[in-house]
Amino acid sequence: MVQDPFKPAKRVSGQRQDVWSIVNEAAEASNVKPMVNMGQGFFGYNPPDFVINAAKEALGRVECNQYSPTKGRPRLKKAIADAYSPFFDHQLNPDTEVTITTGANEGMLSAFMGFLEQGDEVIVFEPFFDQYISNIEMPGGKVVYVPLRPPKDGDKKTTSAGEWSLDLKELEAAINERTRMLVLNSPHNPIGKVFTKDELQAIGDLCVKHNIIILSDEVYDRLYYVPFTRIGNLSPEIARLTLTVGSAGKNFYATGWRVGFLIGPEHLIKYVSAAHTRICFSSVSPLQEATAVAFEQADAHNFWEDSKREMQAKVKLFCEVLDELDLPYSIPEGGYFVMVNLAKIKLPEGYDFPPHVASRPRDFQLSWFLIKEVGLAAIPPTEFFTDEHAYMAEDWLRFAVCKNDDVLELAKERMRGLRKYIQ
Amino acid sequence: MVQDPFKPAKRVSGQRQDVWSIVNEAAEASNVKPMVNMGQGFFGYNPPDFVINAAKEALGRVECNQYSPTKGRPRLKKAIADAYSPFFDHQLNPDTEVTITTGANEGMLSAFMGFLEQGDEVIVFEPFFDQYISNIEMPGGKVVYVPLRPPKDGDKKTTSAGEWSLDLKELEAAINERTRMLVLNSPHNPIGKVFTKDELQAIGDLCVKHNIIILSDEVYDRLYYVPFTRIGNLSPEIARLTLTVGSAGKNFYATGWRVGFLIGPEHLIKYVSAAHTRICFSSVSPLQEATAVAFEQADAHNFWEDSKREMQAKVKLFCEVLDELDLPYSIPEGGYFVMVNLAKIKLPEGYDFPPHVASRPRDFQLSWFLIKEVGLAAIPPTEFFTDEHAYMAEDWLRFAVCKNDDVLELAKERMRGLRKYIQ
Repeated sequence: MVQDPFKPAKRVSGQRQDVWSIVNEAAEASNVKPMVNMGQGFFGYNPPDFVINAAKEALGRVECNQYSPTKGRPRLKKAIADAYSPFFDHQLNPDTEVTITTGANEGMLSAFMGFLEQGDEVIVFEPFFDQYISNIEMPGGKVVYVPLRPPKDGDKKTTSAGEWSLDLKELEAAINERTRMLVLNSPHNPIGKVFTKDELQAIGDLCVKHNIIILSDEVYDRLYYVPFTRIGNLSPEIARLTLTVGSAGKNFYATGWRVGFLIGPEHLIKYVSAAHTRICFSSVSPLQEATAVAFEQADAHNFWEDSKREMQAKVKLFCEVLDELDLPYSIPEGGYFVMVNLAKIKLPEGYDFPPHVASRPRDFQLSWFLIKEVGLAAIPPTEFFTDEHAYMAEDWLRFAVCKNDDVLELAKERMRGLRKYIQ
Repeated sequence: MVQDPFKPAKRVSGQRQDVWSIVNEAAEASNVKPMVNMGQGFFGYNPPDFVINAAKEALGRVECNQYSPTKGRPRLKKAIADAYSPFFDHQLNPDTEVTITTGANEGMLSAFMGFLEQGDEVIVFEPFFDQYISNIEMPGGKVVYVPLRPPKDGDKKTTSAGEWSLDLKELEAAINERTRMLVLNSPHNPIGKVFTKDELQAIGDLCVKHNIIILSDEVYDRLYYVPFTRIGNLSPEIARLTLTVGSAGKNFYATGWRVGFLIGPEHLIKYVSAAHTRICFSSVSPLQEATAVAFEQADAHNFWEDSKREMQAKVKLFCEVLDELDLPYSIPEGGYFVMVNLAKIKLPEGYDFPPHVASRPRDFQLSWFLIKEVGLAAIPPTEFFTDEHAYMAEDWLRFAVCKNDDVLELAKERMRGLRKYIQ
């Protein structure tokens, strides 16, 4: 007989308090309300009308409210194959080279579930999107970390996100005979770095040399402000090892829709689909249909160009106040996050942080302080580092600019409240 | 270096062809078109207007298109707590006793992920919903099967689904010190059995005696035609061990919405939520909001009563042709599946079945034959049995009646095409 029937599995027990609940707790305690939330990367506005209308239309159709095929609705797979074929320089087969998942997140879990056995190793760059870790560990994988180092003078002057750098020797040293997969993220969250073609070629060559599957998280793929290369299109040798991950939620301003997709060669995609079937069976039908329409019509609405231009304008709008305050930041090359270096902020001595914040690196204290004193939420990036490397990011905070312009203006006003703490 | 980088994990490799693809293949080869599909349990009609309208309305609201909290939208958790509190004889706490999942399927996976360690055992009754098996095995669990035996004269006369019986001694013999969980399903798919209060009390007592968590799949909970008991409400001792699984998709005719939920004590629910967060992060926002409205307004629209009455009428409508042909069936006590015994059908000698159908039990051949010769699809239930016990169901087929009445009329006409093969 089991002694304690309520004992949870190790995979879900004993985590420290997550960053989102700390942010919410600080908001509760804040002196300035309402809090301006530049923390979590959800959009402060709706998908475009042509997408919303497609969703409403789908809700009227019986077949769009019932189970979709486990690999995704044929119309959506075809729309994605058509939209992405130009990026991969060949006509993608919608039935074998595309599969639909319940958000990019569950898509990546499906990839790990499809290939990892107990003890297999997966290389992840720091900082990392936090869900990677539990998704790798759930099928028994072991995460091996390789840091991206911040720009050397990032605390003194504004730099490019491209200057966050990978040490290739460090990467190769992390590879061993148990290494099965490598997770790449470009444009990168939280850094905003778009990996260069040369960097990707070097990473891809290492993966080819060591037979490592590349899981390339490209959910911010339509928001790049420098040339953007897809590792899956660099060479046939790299392509056969590469799964590219996309997100309709990120593409069309609908993070709550949970429609993601993976693109890759049949010999990889089929096991992602097999795992997805066992995890979620199928994904949300009416929003898959709407996403199909979204991809079909995006070009006609000039959506991708507008989307990129508008987001870059938001980055610039917010960064004005950083320049004004002479706070160094890392200019994003893609995505919608701005990393700001707050080494110049002097936190008042003896400031009353709760113990679970006081015990974390300085960025947690900066985040708490900003929320409580100026009413602006941003994310402490050491949450996305191992303890060993957390020091690299302890002066930085991540701000999400995917908000309405009036919210960004208010955020700038709130930032000005920091002036008196700047040394 | 990994020798074969494309080798899939064992959990996704090497399954025989699944029943759905065999059905589709038979439909392709059919002499009678279009096929009338009573196979998969999706609805042939839309959710009611008040639910569809709620979904359309939600799509217009920014916050309904972005991430929901990982445990579910507060409005939906409250609506479910309010709707289900009367069934559990206490006010459910929406924050601690309810959690939202990406369909009931991912909800059950989350429960297994929350509690099972490698080698832990889970008792499952045969026939079983096929996803249970992979969901238990994914976290390393071992399935232990206990059969529900068909009515003794089920091949000779029409019986009640309640006569499918569990041998309690067989159940207790299956329990050992590694048994962590038991999966219950009432109303039962595919059988249509609603477990009696006495049966549930006996099962619950065994689980209390041996400290076993009960995962009670009650996704057909609004469709019962005999008194329906919820095991989670039998006693405080059983309640503390019970997770009840529900499905908005099944409740509101929207199997493609992927909104499920679990109800149970906080000490169980919190680890289901924790696992769900790691699997899907969060579930589809606009359809969660619509489901909240659906639960809030269902009583005012007399939806539950209408839903039950209409489904029972569909059961009766379809069963008329079985009576007409003198084919015995098992009268469902709940849900929307009718199990029909086709022992009387004589398959033509030397009939040309493809090898992967010829090698399966007789119900697969019956299914293939029905699709090909009369253009009517039903599911062979031995797919939901172990090889050891498959013989129990090899003369049965499962028909889903959740279809429009004109489709059911056409299905009856197709069934009449079987007359010449009845002995």
